Amino acid sequence: MNDLNRQWVLAKEAYGEGMCLPEDCFGYNEAGIPESGEGEILVRNVYFACEPAVHAMVRGVPGRIDPLPVGSVMRGSAAGVVVESNHPDYQAGELVNGSFEWADYTVMGGTDPRGNPVNKLITGYPMASAMTTLGMSGVCAYIGMFRIGKPVPGDTVVVSAAAGGIGSIAGQLAKLSGARVIGITSSAEKARRLVEEVGYDDAIDYRGEDLVGRLAELAPEGVNVFFDNAGGPILDAVLVNLANWGRIAICGGASSYQNPDVGVKSHMLLAQRNGLMRGFWLFDNADIIPEALARIGRWHKAGLIKDVLDIAEGFEAVPRAARGIFDGANMGKQLVRISDDPTA
Amino acid sequence: MNDLNRQWVLAKEAYGEGMCLPEDCFGYNEAGIPESGEGEILVRNVYFACEPAVHAMVRGVPGRIDPLPVGSVMRGSAAGVVVESNHPDYQAGELVNGSFEWADYTVMGGTDPRGNPVNKLITGYPMASAMTTLGMSGVCAYIGMFRIGKPVPGDTVVVSAAAGGIGSIAGQLAKLSGARVIGITSSAEKARRLVEEVGYDDAIDYRGEDLVGRLAELAPEGVNVFFDNAGGPILDAVLVNLANWGRIAICGGASSYQNPDVGVKSHMLLAQRNGLMRGFWLFDNADIIPEALARIGRWHKAGLIKDVLDIAEGFEAVPRAARGIFDGANMGKQLVRISDDPTA
Repeated sequence: MNDLNRQWVLAKEAYGEGMCLPEDCFGYNEAGIPESGEGEILVRNVYFACEPAVHAMVRGVPGRIDPLPVGSVMRGSAAGVVVESNHPDYQAGELVNGSFEWADYTVMGGTDPRGNPVNKLITGYPMASAMTTLGMSGVCAYIGMFRIGKPVPGDTVVVSAAAGGIGSIAGQLAKLSGARVIGITSSAEKARRLVEEVGYDDAIDYRGEDLVGRLAELAPEGVNVFFDNAGGPILDAVLVNLANWGRIAICGGASSYQNPDVGVKSHMLLAQRNGLMRGFWLFDNADIIPEALARIGRWHKAGLIKDVLDIAEGFEAVPRAARGIFDGANMGKQLVRISDDPTA
Repeated sequence: MNDLNRQWVLAKEAYGEGMCLPEDCFGYNEAGIPESGEGEILVRNVYFACEPAVHAMVRGVPGRIDPLPVGSVMRGSAAGVVVESNHPDYQAGELVNGSFEWADYTVMGGTDPRGNPVNKLITGYPMASAMTTLGMSGVCAYIGMFRIGKPVPGDTVVVSAAAGGIGSIAGQLAKLSGARVIGITSSAEKARRLVEEVGYDDAIDYRGEDLVGRLAELAPEGVNVFFDNAGGPILDAVLVNLANWGRIAICGGASSYQNPDVGVKSHMLLAQRNGLMRGFWLFDNADIIPEALARIGRWHKAGLIKDVLDIAEGFEAVPRAARGIFDGANMGKQLVRISDDPTA
């Protein structure tokens, strides 16, 4: 056990000029390893997961998430190993995840700094699978696709941020439903890999191609289901191509993270096409988690769903990786490994 | 029977500079009364109904409605009396409605110029009630409120264009459900009348008041159901105040008729609030018409729902009335009476 506790702290206001999470808003700090008191656990972090929610953590979400004060140790989705436990519900050696500090070590009671219970990773899977496909990314994909989108065989399903952590699973779930699945992503290279490696039927590079026109070509009878992580002009392009009675699951809105004035201009097409647009907040849909994880686990073990992971190495890589997902730098869920993975 | 057939024709392109339906885009014309041939009926028009759909008739709706060529006799929702019938399904003296020409007389087969069957007005009601509350306005209000919004007792329901033809019925339907109902309208005078005459619990003049703030005051626990005829900043203001699990029925988008670049900026709140936004196209929901008309008829006869009508007089008033609804000039459904009403 190293006796250093490296940390990334929120060094300054992260917002200005519509820019989202500049890398230089995080400052490096070194501290001693904290000690776990009565009722607490000491966790060695293994993986940080880079998620758009980091942005919400910094800026806050009115009524949902308070912004983190400047000077705080940053937080985000992470998974680690319990090193010491003075809490009756946890044992040394157990694998846990939650919203942990961006540090080598974190001391917590039974809840993470965000106030949610420290979750035990599902067992029997590699840690990186358990915290992504078998974790909240998988559950979000499941809710959006099966509670809202509800594809049936023959449907055309479109997924935006299709190579992202949630999108890459959502696309695979749609394929299992017997739908034809089109991904929207931010480079020709990722579009190619979505088809060759992830199993999308087609993929569109929205930066290099005419999105409205390509969707019309690839979905001549319209889009039946859209799983949206993007918002803005990408959502508009799908609305224009929405089939009658189409369903849109709103999971994220990456374009509005960058620029909160980005709007949706074509929502009136919902009326002409009897369209449904529905959002979901994970923690209000917790009732579905056992069902989702049981099914995804079965499909994962059967090789019907695979992890799509982009793993950076080393504690120093965290700020760049966290920023990178807003630029579409990742192919699959972006993780950063900062210490030895006991399941690898 | 007058031997003149007055007509309003589409005199020029109605669009430019984002302006919607300038009055001067209609030209007055006089023709002879047309004769009904084999299989045709001659209808004397009594009421024209001014509806946002007139706008769609002029501009077209991609894939739904072809735009009317310049020089055509204008069309719109109307009701009249069958004067002569050479069609086995219609008899002289019957009251009919549909999308008829803006003229004293129209000759039609069994379908109106838009291709829909010439509908017989429901009997036992004044003609103006039968073509509005007991007609498609009532059905639209019913679909949006009961197929999408589904208010339950204790809910807070908001209706935009609350004094309009559909909104004024939607608000009354929500009251019957036991909800608290707030109207959004375009003047303090109409806001007052919505509460005093139509039965809204509260009403907000969005031009004179701070809409976001007033909604927060009047709906401190959030808006459960929103019946939207407006789109744009009004929809955004309600999204900001949407309750968790709120439902939004998209019926119309008056703000985008005026300016197609008006967008919705807050759609991501659907994700944070598990919100549903759903549109509907009347003719794809025709299965619900018998149920809707049976119920609305019962409520109407029992005095639980009343007509809210704004009736202009005379053929020359048509263009101004048609334009006026986009300016919020009307209190209730805007009709123009152009000849004697046999039920008055």
